[in-house]
Amino acid sequence: MHEYSNDILARLSAMRELQCAAREITLPLFEDGMTVVNKAELGTESGYDPVTQADTNAEKALRAIIQKNFPNDAITGEEFDDIDGTSDWMWTLDPIDGTRGFVAGVPVWSTLIAVSYLGKPLLGLIDLPALDTAFWGEPGHAWREDKSGKTNIHTKACSKINDAIMGCTEPLSMLNAGELAAYNIIRSAARFSRLGLDAFGYGLVASGRMDIIIESGLKPCDVRALIPIIEGAGGKITNWHGGSCVDGGRVVAVGDEALLPELYTYLGRAMNP
Amino acid sequence: MHEYSNDILARLSAMRELQCAAREITLPLFEDGMTVVNKAELGTESGYDPVTQADTNAEKALRAIIQKNFPNDAITGEEFDDIDGTSDWMWTLDPIDGTRGFVAGVPVWSTLIAVSYLGKPLLGLIDLPALDTAFWGEPGHAWREDKSGKTNIHTKACSKINDAIMGCTEPLSMLNAGELAAYNIIRSAARFSRLGLDAFGYGLVASGRMDIIIESGLKPCDVRALIPIIEGAGGKITNWHGGSCVDGGRVVAVGDEALLPELYTYLGRAMNP
Repeated sequence: MHEYSNDILARLSAMRELQCAAREITLPLFEDGMTVVNKAELGTESGYDPVTQADTNAEKALRAIIQKNFPNDAITGEEFDDIDGTSDWMWTLDPIDGTRGFVAGVPVWSTLIAVSYLGKPLLGLIDLPALDTAFWGEPGHAWREDKSGKTNIHTKACSKINDAIMGCTEPLSMLNAGELAAYNIIRSAARFSRLGLDAFGYGLVASGRMDIIIESGLKPCDVRALIPIIEGAGGKITNWHGGSCVDGGRVVAVGDEALLPELYTYLGRAMNP
Repeated sequence: MHEYSNDILARLSAMRELQCAAREITLPLFEDGMTVVNKAELGTESGYDPVTQADTNAEKALRAIIQKNFPNDAITGEEFDDIDGTSDWMWTLDPIDGTRGFVAGVPVWSTLIAVSYLGKPLLGLIDLPALDTAFWGEPGHAWREDKSGKTNIHTKACSKINDAIMGCTEPLSMLNAGELAAYNIIRSAARFSRLGLDAFGYGLVASGRMDIIIESGLKPCDVRALIPIIEGAGGKITNWHGGSCVDGGRVVAVGDEALLPELYTYLGRAMNP
């Protein structure tokens, strides 16, 4: 398969349509306030995890566009059951990553769209409607789009944890005790940390503004869109052992892969105390 | 003193001039990248605390405007020495609150401007240039300004911690062990928490999107601008004992003051284990 086969181009073009369709649904609801349904009350998950009208409406709209254009592709998303495909292509959707930020009025929430070929994410989009900013990734290439236009992005060199700006959305609720111990070792050594970023943090790593993201408990739909963006910008994203993070779980992303051996040492040690 | 004396109106008008002057300096540097000087290297503080060109240039510009218009007013700011005044008025400036976010490319940083009369903050501004959003407060009144215009804001009713959306910029580095224990009790009871917001979180409390902010180690210039905004919107902001937070330190802000007695119990207990 050539990287720019018609199959890829057609799906990249469709991603743009999905981006616009999702924004039309999510952005007005973010600005106006919204109805929050508690998933726990619906019996689908334990703990607090709000599903907004925006979340479900956007995923419905995205699935409809995909099914119309690529009826044989598989679809997996946060809000509805998986759709099995008969092609080698799969779409992974998270209409609103960072739902809690969305509810709290924080503009750092995003729509995540990934296209995988034979299980590997090739195309990724982190779209931040409230910031009018998007990060795109494809094999060997990543770019940022905002009101100023389209800019190629690259991770930055940073080979020492001491020099690194690191991030994690919510260490105290996202990490268990052993994970938090590993995180704290790295945080204490790092230059500084910024929290509360959800997928936006990965976009900042891809564009060379941050150096490390360490998170845990991610779902497949939280992580697949990030992979082509981080890798296309020159970074690495893996699980805490150096393996694939395509199915979520414990994830570490870096702009400079020279950071990884030391990070894996800390992350691995704390997981097996 | 009448609330809308000419003295107040003149200073409110000057704050608008300061807002524009600061934006002209800070926003291009945020977008283009900037030079970071490490305060620790300059020997003025221990630990990491970046001072950007934006920070120092903006504070110089703001001080010049104030001194030209109100030569008898006192000025205190983050970057330079205090200027004693001979009037009853004092300006408190933080040209970039959330400098770390500024460095990391996170648009949640702000310019904070407070005007105090006989030591009490009467006028406050949280200006978020990268979000084109500002929160303003004056006695009995607070409002938000963005591209859609000016909207009066009010805190929302929320009398139970279980229903509250809470925030803290960076619990693990901002709070000592005893403070973190208190924070964790409240966090575990709350509906959910959002981190990494700096002064923006207080604007979200004032506009009814969040309910509680708990922080520690704030400087006078971090907190004075927040007071007229939180109070003008109907909320309360105090230290952890219920006293004034005008000089910073440990700060708790709520949209609904019914939350305070229970919060003070937890916050007080953990401080005196």
